[in-house]
Amino acid sequence: MLTLSLIGIGCGDPEQLTLAAIRAINAADLVLIPRKGPVKSDLADLRRLICAQALTNSRTRVAEFDLPIRDTAQEGYRKGVDEWHDAVAVSWSRAIAAHLGDCGRVALLIWGDPSLYDSSLRIARKLDPLPMIEVVPGITSIQALCAAHSLPLNDIGEPFLVTTGRRLREGGWPSGTDTVVVMLDGGAAFQWLDPNGLHIWWGAYLGMPRQITMSGALAEVGPGIVATRQEARARHGWIMDSYILKRVS
Amino acid sequence: MLTLSLIGIGCGDPEQLTLAAIRAINAADLVLIPRKGPVKSDLADLRRLICAQALTNSRTRVAEFDLPIRDTAQEGYRKGVDEWHDAVAVSWSRAIAAHLGDCGRVALLIWGDPSLYDSSLRIARKLDPLPMIEVVPGITSIQALCAAHSLPLNDIGEPFLVTTGRRLREGGWPSGTDTVVVMLDGGAAFQWLDPNGLHIWWGAYLGMPRQITMSGALAEVGPGIVATRQEARARHGWIMDSYILKRVS
Repeated sequence: MLTLSLIGIGCGDPEQLTLAAIRAINAADLVLIPRKGPVKSDLADLRRLICAQALTNSRTRVAEFDLPIRDTAQEGYRKGVDEWHDAVAVSWSRAIAAHLGDCGRVALLIWGDPSLYDSSLRIARKLDPLPMIEVVPGITSIQALCAAHSLPLNDIGEPFLVTTGRRLREGGWPSGTDTVVVMLDGGAAFQWLDPNGLHIWWGAYLGMPRQITMSGALAEVGPGIVATRQEARARHGWIMDSYILKRVS
Repeated sequence: MLTLSLIGIGCGDPEQLTLAAIRAINAADLVLIPRKGPVKSDLADLRRLICAQALTNSRTRVAEFDLPIRDTAQEGYRKGVDEWHDAVAVSWSRAIAAHLGDCGRVALLIWGDPSLYDSSLRIARKLDPLPMIEVVPGITSIQALCAAHSLPLNDIGEPFLVTTGRRLREGGWPSGTDTVVVMLDGGAAFQWLDPNGLHIWWGAYLGMPRQITMSGALAEVGPGIVATRQEARARHGWIMDSYILKRVS
């Protein structure tokens, strides 16, 4: 019998690890660390650091494996994602078979929380044989963003929408809410909104020593955020950022 | 100079505590634990337990204080909330003055995450004198709910709305999203929706030993959830529950 633990590790600060995550890491027979190519080596480095700091069980093995590269040139966003998930599931199955066999506990350290804009739960359901799945929640970049700005996410009794840069760019400001959280935005989609009456709270590399935050009226700080994220991406080779927009009266 | 740490402690399981939260608790000169009357004594008990388990700094003092009771009979939801926040701010200021004075680090342990449907950040800004404010994120009941059900919150590249029971009951299914998270719902507002094509993932007392979860087609499991939450509330004297609804095709 195989059990797969998907363990949320927070978004960059090893101190975002929960006691439950530390317990789950140490309960594993095998911790698998994916290598995603040089650009994302910072993320693999964080997982190695977390293993080094959190792992006290000498019987837990740590093994690295190469993830397939996603074919972003492929037509059709959903089809490309589905095929990539299939390929990732094959690479997980191979790594588990090679390092553990078909019995025991294997753990994967998931950036943020396994339930939020993460594909691990979907990939896990494609594994053959199908494991028991356990989820350990982790601090998300939304929470780190709010904490960095000391910002209450929702207004009192009011809703908020969490969406993607793609959706915001294509659909404009969503109806029925004055607060929008934007994730997975590769292109600063806020530029395509009318900035009048909007405030932004933005953050990149949240929780990491290189964390950057900016906030203010979108009309005033928007251009500066675009320039800052361009410069930071060039300097570090990658960027992960997210932001909250609020309509203020 | 006064610093106020608002420390997210998760939603019921002491193991949801992060390393950053433990560090912040031990960095405090004073941890204040609010007493909210007998019904919510379970929540004060969890805070006491967390202090007992996490606190290793012998110089950190722990003090309890009584929170004012909210006047829910008052007309106007927002006005009632504002006045209650004023009253809570006064009780915080008095407790800080009595146990610490006007210099040092005071910590409050916040259920869930200080940024999500929590009033601490708003109350903190009403304190006199105004402290420096620090926020430490914590695991929310949304995350514990997803973990308990091994459920990806969003569909691939799709948005989701987080809202309240009141909003759902008054406004029906919100436009522009197929996934809705419902918090602060005292009355199982999903009963007022047309259940056709909706699935629900429900949980109460998430993270606690008494945790209950149920899921399925809303038309099938909805009445059972209503009965279960009524019985659980009667047995324990209080209930905190939340749920995710998805429109499935």
